[in-house]
Amino acid sequence: MSAHSPLSNLAVPVRSDGKKIRAGVLGATGMVGQRLVHLLADHPWFELTEVAASERSSGKTYAKAVHWHLETPVPAAACDLVVKGLDPSLDCDFVFSALDSSVAGPAEEDFARAGYPVVSNSRNHRMDPDVPLLIPEVNAAHLDAIPLQQKNRGYDTGFIVTNPNCSTAGLVLVLKPLADAFGLEKIFVVTLQAISGAGYPGVASMDIQGNVVPFISGEEEKMEAEPQKLLGKWDGSRFVDAGLGLSAHCNRVPVVDGHLECVSIGL
Amino acid sequence: MSAHSPLSNLAVPVRSDGKKIRAGVLGATGMVGQRLVHLLADHPWFELTEVAASERSSGKTYAKAVHWHLETPVPAAACDLVVKGLDPSLDCDFVFSALDSSVAGPAEEDFARAGYPVVSNSRNHRMDPDVPLLIPEVNAAHLDAIPLQQKNRGYDTGFIVTNPNCSTAGLVLVLKPLADAFGLEKIFVVTLQAISGAGYPGVASMDIQGNVVPFISGEEEKMEAEPQKLLGKWDGSRFVDAGLGLSAHCNRVPVVDGHLECVSIGL
Amino acid sequence: MSAHSPLSNLAVPVRSDGKKIRAGVLGATGMVGQRLVHLLADHPWFELTEVAASERSSGKTYAKAVHWHLETPVPAAACDLVVKGLDPSLDCDFVFSALDSSVAGPAEEDFARAGYPVVSNSRNHRMDPDVPLLIPEVNAAHLDAIPLQQKNRGYDTGFIVTNPNCSTAGLVLVLKPLADAFGLEKIFVVTLQAISGAGYPGVASMDIQGNVVPFISGEEEKMEAEPQKLLGKWDGSRFVDAGLGLSAHCNRVPVVDGHLECVSIGL
Amino acid sequence: MSAHSPLSNLAVPVRSDGKKIRAGVLGATGMVGQRLVHLLADHPWFELTEVAASERSSGKTYAKAVHWHLETPVPAAACDLVVKGLDPSLDCDFVFSALDSSVAGPAEEDFARAGYPVVSNSRNHRMDPDVPLLIPEVNAAHLDAIPLQQKNRGYDTGFIVTNPNCSTAGLVLVLKPLADAFGLEKIFVVTLQAISGAGYPGVASMDIQGNVVPFISGEEEKMEAEPQKLLGKWDGSRFVDAGLGLSAHCNRVPVVDGHLECVSIGL
Repeated sequence: MSAHSPLSNLAVPVRSDGKKIRAGVLGATGMVGQRLVHLLADHPWFELTEVAASERSSGKTYAKAVHWHLETPVPAAACDLVVKGLDPSLDCDFVFSALDSSVAGPAEEDFARAGYPVVSNSRNHRMDPDVPLLIPEVNAAHLDAIPLQQKNRGYDTGFIVTNPNCSTAGLVLVLKPLADAFGLEKIFVVTLQAISGAGYPGVASMDIQGNVVPFISGEEEKMEAEPQKLLGKWDGSRFVDAGLGLSAHCNRVPVVDGHLECVSIGL
Repeated sequence: MSAHSPLSNLAVPVRSDGKKIRAGVLGATGMVGQRLVHLLADHPWFELTEVAASERSSGKTYAKAVHWHLETPVPAAACDLVVKGLDPSLDCDFVFSALDSSVAGPAEEDFARAGYPVVSNSRNHRMDPDVPLLIPEVNAAHLDAIPLQQKNRGYDTGFIVTNPNCSTAGLVLVLKPLADAFGLEKIFVVTLQAISGAGYPGVASMDIQGNVVPFISGEEEKMEAEPQKLLGKWDGSRFVDAGLGLSAHCNRVPVVDGHLECVSIGL
Repeated sequence: MSAHSPLSNLAVPVRSDGKKIRAGVLGATGMVGQRLVHLLADHPWFELTEVAASERSSGKTYAKAVHWHLETPVPAAACDLVVKGLDPSLDCDFVFSALDSSVAGPAEEDFARAGYPVVSNSRNHRMDPDVPLLIPEVNAAHLDAIPLQQKNRGYDTGFIVTNPNCSTAGLVLVLKPLADAFGLEKIFVVTLQAISGAGYPGVASMDIQGNVVPFISGEEEKMEAEPQKLLGKWDGSRFVDAGLGLSAHCNRVPVVDGHLECVSIGL
Repeated sequence: MSAHSPLSNLAVPVRSDGKKIRAGVLGATGMVGQRLVHLLADHPWFELTEVAASERSSGKTYAKAVHWHLETPVPAAACDLVVKGLDPSLDCDFVFSALDSSVAGPAEEDFARAGYPVVSNSRNHRMDPDVPLLIPEVNAAHLDAIPLQQKNRGYDTGFIVTNPNCSTAGLVLVLKPLADAFGLEKIFVVTLQAISGAGYPGVASMDIQGNVVPFISGEEEKMEAEPQKLLGKWDGSRFVDAGLGLSAHCNRVPVVDGHLECVSIGL
């Protein structure tokens, strides 16, 4: 990360007033949002100050609005937060977005335009030519694209950064040191993915009970496109693909949590 | 069944013209409807001549409209039938109804009023005071209520007959001979019910994967009410309950097909 | 518990030398034994000082001998303990027994005869006429049988106390306050029991995958006998059964942990 | 297959006396044996005349000896056959062997030496330098090795032919036409394999319930060795490997029947 990248002040885990950085979560009632709320409870850097979701939930307390799926209880710090709508007027320093892809596109742009750094798990902006797709351990230098993004889009202090698809993240963390040490030409990856990845209600039990489903809509496309960007370079004006030969086959298996990936490299 | 009951002509498995009785299926694309279509293929008494469903499916061939879930293929005789809407102008002698309870109530009345005998698997009319809830081996005499139903409702040749909830049917077939031989006072029944009973998509895999769900909405109420009617009597003007003490506890289990019931009788 | 019961000194959770009470676990490598080892780690009253098992494991460290099945790691305090055989010469104040019923009978007697209090999860001595079958919240007074047991069997400081079958324990905890308040006459209980209750390897996956098995060998007999003793009384010379009408139906379900019981009382 | 191969007379599906060829099954009570018994019932070419198994089962009728796992009933033609031991004195023209690998090695040699053609599903002799590993659609010409096998081993009319591991069979059937048309250099294959492949009791439910097990003992070794022989050539004196780069990763999944294989070819 360059010294002047817009996130450099976040590297110090306090605000200028000495307090924790205040985080909001968009799409906080969904399954990814619940995971974020869980991870932000008692976080050493962040304080969860806002939860936002679609209109159906807004106005209720988080404890009442959420259909909680994790085994741990709803964090005490989140229970009494009132769920807000997707209006970019939240009391927080930045937002994590766990919005469904049906609404994430324009909503995340609204927040960035209103000055919020947006860190998104949604797929909508991942492949945008001026939006970093980020795994900090892999391609932190891609954050250098943010000033151009802000200039292109007329954002002031706000911007959008995305993280990759879950299956991509695990794969690329393994590929990165191999790419650096040996170079990579061809990758074949087969996944066995848990049902929680499809959200709730997600996969119908009639489809997966005692069964394996050798297809996950859009997943193979993401796994074949995103590593190209992650392992590629930001050349100052655009992202240059890594130019890998990449083939992915994704299977859904009757397991609640976790992904298993079998990878063949550079055959 | 009395000699003059409206179904007595159906007891001879041919029409007056010597042909098979022509059956229609309402709600033919759902999971219960699929089972009916499967059972009517190559049936010795019936010929499936019409399939009807909600507006979304109508106009397509059955093969294109249905998301088929059975392990056997779509019956050849059904593939090319054009799915009709729920207008009571079908070319058939009677209809089986597998309609969802959200639409079954008035739709079944429309067909009865238009002259069709309606044999329904839906719950809407089961407890109506002039509608037989029928297990032929248990309470065929309840068909004697049909003339009063027709008079009450202004139906001419049409009428409605229902079958009980799946868990009730298995229970009452067992209780009937015991009730006849010994009398019954108190029944406690616990069910373990498969996921197919909830239709498709039905139970979310996140809810049932490696789990048992000790609640099925409305099921215990049905299991505690329907046997009273089935084991009771038609006294010429109304159904008299059997007056049993009945308690049911229903569990969903991660099994595709079948129900298991554990019953305690007359403790 | 009477003032002079042999366990009364255990009610003070320290030894006379001010140290924690030293516990041994028999059958420590099996699935019940693992659970005991897990529960004894960092226990406020007990220090785990000995693990014992069949000859096949003895001589190895516990970390090497055990095929660990719990999600938490092997407790650090247990890893380096050397697994002993079933010889009653362990360095501990008493033993928990998780021995398989094929060996528990005489082995537990050997330890009691050698002076060890034996607290057993095995079924072998549960219904012995001079051995308490104990749920402390339910029938602590049954400990009064221990002096007669010691006299009958020629034990000095040692004795045997057992806990009931897992399904019985949950049932009787619920029945006890109802029995006290209202009296109980007849009980019908249906269980849905997880696969972990059968140990490891236990239930074959071919038997339980997508299935429910309506039979667990010996389980219904235990559930119908043990509550009679637990809810009955020690009259100074023998245990008097509670005289309940009790009927149990036990099912195995494809769930890893936990039991669900549906109970009908006093119909 | 050459005109003089020892199996050429089997290509005519009748014996010289015009009757069906009489087949025996070794290991008939195991899960693979049951499948063979099922497939031989009402077979147009074969009549099942003998079932043999370990000493524990011999002397009983097949219906009594077998713990039947298939959904179809035990074939009527097999029910009353008396299970014989593994003595090569069966009344049949040849045997299928479904013996466990712990006993298959010498038992199959005994039968071949006694004059029986042995067609084996066991792994013991698959990689023997004079035993064909056969998929008839792929490498029927490997049967030409039989005369040398008979000469080497002093067999007269008897011999041993094997079929590959289940996962290998599906893979090689797909690879063969591609190898013929394009040549193959490198293969990466990932399997998702059902629990029935491990026999009964096989996989413990505690290991596979809601889980995927990324290891099947010996399976990857077989999948990496057997295709080399199957896709290679018999040069008149020995089998010449295909010389492929082959990597296999095998996973057990909680499904009852079937294997799914994801293959990357010639990357």
